[in-house]
Amino acid sequence: MKTIIIGIAGGTASGKTTIARKIYDASLAYGSVTIIKIDDYYKKLDHLTFEERKKINYDHPNAYDIDLLISQLNDLKQKKAINKPIYDFITHNRSKDCEIIKPSNVVIVEGILTFAIPELRQMFDVKIYVDTPDDVRFIRRLTRDIKLRGRSLDSVIDQYLSTVRPMHLMFVEPSKLYADIIIPEGGENQVAIDFLVARIVNILKE
Amino acid sequence: MKTIIIGIAGGTASGKTTIARKIYDASLAYGSVTIIKIDDYYKKLDHLTFEERKKINYDHPNAYDIDLLISQLNDLKQKKAINKPIYDFITHNRSKDCEIIKPSNVVIVEGILTFAIPELRQMFDVKIYVDTPDDVRFIRRLTRDIKLRGRSLDSVIDQYLSTVRPMHLMFVEPSKLYADIIIPEGGENQVAIDFLVARIVNILKE
Repeated sequence: MKTIIIGIAGGTASGKTTIARKIYDASLAYGSVTIIKIDDYYKKLDHLTFEERKKINYDHPNAYDIDLLISQLNDLKQKKAINKPIYDFITHNRSKDCEIIKPSNVVIVEGILTFAIPELRQMFDVKIYVDTPDDVRFIRRLTRDIKLRGRSLDSVIDQYLSTVRPMHLMFVEPSKLYADIIIPEGGENQVAIDFLVARIVNILKE
Repeated sequence: MKTIIIGIAGGTASGKTTIARKIYDASLAYGSVTIIKIDDYYKKLDHLTFEERKKINYDHPNAYDIDLLISQLNDLKQKKAINKPIYDFITHNRSKDCEIIKPSNVVIVEGILTFAIPELRQMFDVKIYVDTPDDVRFIRRLTRDIKLRGRSLDSVIDQYLSTVRPMHLMFVEPSKLYADIIIPEGGENQVAIDFLVARIVNILKE
């Protein structure tokens, strides 16, 4: 069968990963499924110092190695395995390791800018936008960054207002226009997940 | 099986009817499906003159006989046939005739205010909002009203600005918040329709 490539976009902490995971879990019995996070395709920045790398705007399309991502998605469509890069969030650079991803029936690609980059957007058979209210997303991100990542309140607010929010308004929110389906409230929306899963399972069964 | 009640809301000319019809056509081979337009539940206005009836704001929740609609949806859920009213758009009043609707596996309820009325909103197992840009909807409505209904340009614009648009902003747009799934661009969005149909067919097959 043809490889189906599903794009999932939406703002930070909108519930993209939860939706991707629930589609994955429900589909796995009917075929092979892979999840690719586009953040693993942040550009290799070996030529910069750690301090310089920390200053990069990682919410901007220019931060991504789109050519590599598109080339590897094309390989997966042609049923070739890929060496997916792995991004190291601690060093702010591409890791030395990579992950071998075998071709699969369904490839789920998720990230905030998945639909914001025209060449990438054209790769998808289905485009799902997870649309969670801005204040709810901020609260989720705040809680996650403080509790799980040991960040301070001030640093979370500062990063949100200086880059996350302006880049959301400039790139992420307008890319909703290209979605085939918009899922409000992200991963807790079981009615919507049932619809997504039903269609994907049907494709896998065909 | 339990009767599934699907609500479809969205602004004027958003593509609600096309989506309802495509779900209907694709599901019919697997079970019984009915479409109910909530505009047929406009209040009976025998006590008003034609001129008085023309002045009613038909884009406001108060124009609907919600008690009757909810009572008849409950009858359908209990597998009882109903005598659905028929609204006469020429006399601006409920017609003398009604239509016998037999109970079915799936009941699709569509109209601009389907999610704007809390008691009605609670009736749905699935809530689908058809989200088409405001200017595109106006252009569709303009074309339809001029070509199919013989209306003048001025009368379409006047009605749109005086009632349709303010009521959309007050009641329809905010009701999007309650949707389980948002479908951009209405009836031409085949990717989304395939998802809707897959799940509904699965429910019917169960």
